[in-house]
Amino acid sequence: MTIAALNTAIGRINDVLSAASVLVWDSRTMLPKGGAASRAAQLATLVGVARDLLLCDATSQALDGARREVENLAEDDPWRRAVAQVDCAIALHRRIPAELIEREAKARTIGTQIWYEARERNDFALFAPALAEIVAVTREFVDAIGWTDHPYDALLDLYEPGTTLAQLRALFAELQAGLAPILDHARSLPRPRDDFLNGTFPESRVYAAGRMLAETLGYDFEHGRLDKTVHPFAISFTREDVRITMRLGDGRFANSLFGAMHESGHGLYEQNVDRAFTRTALTTELRGLYSGGGASLGTHESQSRLQENHVGRSLPFWRAHFRRVKDILGGPEVDADTFHKAVNRISAGLIRTEADELTYDFHIMLRVELEAKLLAGDIKVADIPGAWNEAMTRYLGLVVPNDREGCLQDIHWSSGAMGSFCTYTIGNIMAAQLMEAARAQDASIAPALDDGETAPLRSWLRDNIWQHGKRFSRDELLVRATGRALEVGPYLRYLAEKFGRTT
Amino acid sequence: MTIAALNTAIGRINDVLSAASVLVWDSRTMLPKGGAASRAAQLATLVGVARDLLLCDATSQALDGARREVENLAEDDPWRRAVAQVDCAIALHRRIPAELIEREAKARTIGTQIWYEARERNDFALFAPALAEIVAVTREFVDAIGWTDHPYDALLDLYEPGTTLAQLRALFAELQAGLAPILDHARSLPRPRDDFLNGTFPESRVYAAGRMLAETLGYDFEHGRLDKTVHPFAISFTREDVRITMRLGDGRFANSLFGAMHESGHGLYEQNVDRAFTRTALTTELRGLYSGGGASLGTHESQSRLQENHVGRSLPFWRAHFRRVKDILGGPEVDADTFHKAVNRISAGLIRTEADELTYDFHIMLRVELEAKLLAGDIKVADIPGAWNEAMTRYLGLVVPNDREGCLQDIHWSSGAMGSFCTYTIGNIMAAQLMEAARAQDASIAPALDDGETAPLRSWLRDNIWQHGKRFSRDELLVRATGRALEVGPYLRYLAEKFGRTT
Repeated sequence: MTIAALNTAIGRINDVLSAASVLVWDSRTMLPKGGAASRAAQLATLVGVARDLLLCDATSQALDGARREVENLAEDDPWRRAVAQVDCAIALHRRIPAELIEREAKARTIGTQIWYEARERNDFALFAPALAEIVAVTREFVDAIGWTDHPYDALLDLYEPGTTLAQLRALFAELQAGLAPILDHARSLPRPRDDFLNGTFPESRVYAAGRMLAETLGYDFEHGRLDKTVHPFAISFTREDVRITMRLGDGRFANSLFGAMHESGHGLYEQNVDRAFTRTALTTELRGLYSGGGASLGTHESQSRLQENHVGRSLPFWRAHFRRVKDILGGPEVDADTFHKAVNRISAGLIRTEADELTYDFHIMLRVELEAKLLAGDIKVADIPGAWNEAMTRYLGLVVPNDREGCLQDIHWSSGAMGSFCTYTIGNIMAAQLMEAARAQDASIAPALDDGETAPLRSWLRDNIWQHGKRFSRDELLVRATGRALEVGPYLRYLAEKFGRTT
Repeated sequence: MTIAALNTAIGRINDVLSAASVLVWDSRTMLPKGGAASRAAQLATLVGVARDLLLCDATSQALDGARREVENLAEDDPWRRAVAQVDCAIALHRRIPAELIEREAKARTIGTQIWYEARERNDFALFAPALAEIVAVTREFVDAIGWTDHPYDALLDLYEPGTTLAQLRALFAELQAGLAPILDHARSLPRPRDDFLNGTFPESRVYAAGRMLAETLGYDFEHGRLDKTVHPFAISFTREDVRITMRLGDGRFANSLFGAMHESGHGLYEQNVDRAFTRTALTTELRGLYSGGGASLGTHESQSRLQENHVGRSLPFWRAHFRRVKDILGGPEVDADTFHKAVNRISAGLIRTEADELTYDFHIMLRVELEAKLLAGDIKVADIPGAWNEAMTRYLGLVVPNDREGCLQDIHWSSGAMGSFCTYTIGNIMAAQLMEAARAQDASIAPALDDGETAPLRSWLRDNIWQHGKRFSRDELLVRATGRALEVGPYLRYLAEKFGRTT
């Protein structure tokens, strides 16, 4: 047995998980209404098959053989790391009983159905029993996996390997302290004109503009597609086929376009992984059982935020490209500077998905705080609305008028993604840290960005992040690329520079 | 162990094969250019996983338990039949060594690549070695499966269970004798006007007309989609999600519309199977390892031909619906009778896929004749062009000017579908037999069809064919529905009535 044998075994698992991803993509873009029930069964079977293949004797034997072969390789050799990934994933899945997986899936299915209804009716009491069941099952889940300091750490480790609640709390404290004065300043400024953002353009034109922007950012349509969905996402079935989606038809063209740029960032990461890693443990999320994935969810989010915010919400980008967008859309009749101001307007609101760059992270802090308490049993499900509303006032000074705009707004808790919210803020922090390093290390990046051109930046990101797949952890990537593990400083400097000046 | 346990095991196999079908659909409608290689690996893995699941101990144990449970049920009880299907499929796959499957897949992949090039260059010699390899592997394959009278019987049994070469020869002899005078008469008639069939209409309008026709025939868009492809097809991921495609953009709108009606017929069959058979052996082609499939390929083709020709190429249908098509397309400026005459024009040609109702079957006879000889070693691959051209003159009086329009025209031999051609003609014969019985048994069918309304016919087809899935064999279906096994008489009567009159 050799690494090749292990790669063959993992290749089959990658195939099954990529197939599951095709079915997910299809469910969200193409599936006829009546096809949902059998599609759910197909997805459950594929993920179950992937798990069975991972835990079967043949894979363990291939792993043992490969382990011996990589012993003498460098500690950070890709194939030594691949072996470690498989090892770790098998150990993880062995700890989770099949019946718990079934119960968790059932709790999620029921929870999601009830959540839709509860949100619609603004009725948290309706959702509460389902949420209590989800919390209980999730607690069983993390207890099965094992944890040391806090049960939440086991969840964090799934989404953002190596991260602990203690680390997050330190990060958030520094972030909150740094953000507060910048936000205070920004909120004191006069509101920029943004009426033209409501201008409605034909769907096909907004799509064409989104496509043009994705191409401008370097997303490769020979190995991808852009389609319409309600909730935009990116998904990978190997680097050869990485698809992105955008929201269309809600009359908010700028949101659609920034969504397309955000997903382009995710797409670029997947499309640019080392070709040699295709269908191996370095491009397969064996712990979470899905295809692709990069170093961590937070790392992935850093790439989407980087394209959306650092590139996409910058003035030079729109000075270079707004004319082209206007030509495609047939409007709006404002200049690039006016558009840039409007899409950077700061306005604290109740809804996370609509939050601006200065308030978004407060929404995350709030959720992490509540999730950790829920999982530890420090608060009860029934106390969530009160705790939510109190935190929203504490973090952003806002009064929550109803649960639909409060604790019922996100699908995450019902869909089994408890523990993943932090990756959005980690992505924000990491994007700024990478941008600061990139500009400092390659003198061609900044002037190119001033012309709206991202090729030099892409080259730096490919070398430092994209190509590595799952070879390095998030902090290894950061130390190699920036000399330091994750730190808040560059993010606060970026935000202060962008929003803290008196204009 | 019970039938429920067996159905659970087969349900997982159906899930995996349905997922493979989603990937096939995606490959032909959505896949970005660069995604083909990894998609091929994914498909191979899924089919391999399905085979492994079928041959695993757990499935055999479930089968044993279910076998005991169905022993006392009626011989034609659906679940007794389901058990028999699983039994038969396991026995079949056990006889085929894994290394042979790999060699066959390789021969097909290489063969298909070379075939494209050979057809492009009109160079049979280039294709000959690949074809020889395919024939050799196919012969190994049928020898592994086993056969009694003729090796071709083993292939026929895969595509059209129970059919033998001897039966086909008898059927074809009767068909040839009956067709000849009808064809002679039809060829003596003046050519109808058909210049307007070249009128080009925008793709979106031809699509809309195809969609309208599919809806008119009863295809259910709540559980399906119609998309654009080069080679139209229908595919099922359980009855809840059955998709069809049509060709667009080649400037032949009538071909596109008849293609949509043809695929609607396949779609209706899959959408109307008994709900209780979903995700069981009665809706899973366990021998061929794909999802859906009905009683046989020939039975499936009978349903597409019935909608395309018996409904779609009839004068009353167009008198009822041509106005609507013209409104959608914005033309052509002819009346229904003129359109009907044009789309029923008889003209012997070299290309099977462009053949009319009177000459199509000769193309099939030719292929079956050559395939059987090839597989038995009665002719060599090098002799194919000569034998093809001789047969084309013998059957249709045509001279073949080059191999591109002769023996290189079809993808079937290179793609591993040798033995499947006969199912097209079986479909033609069976469609007529069913239509004759339907009209005789339900007096409401004929007058409804005269008004362009197919609901009563659909109801008869649902009762007699569609609902049964794989419960009955083709001839069982025919005997139950028409009192007789497959017979040529009704087909010849239909063609004589349609084309034999002096008009």
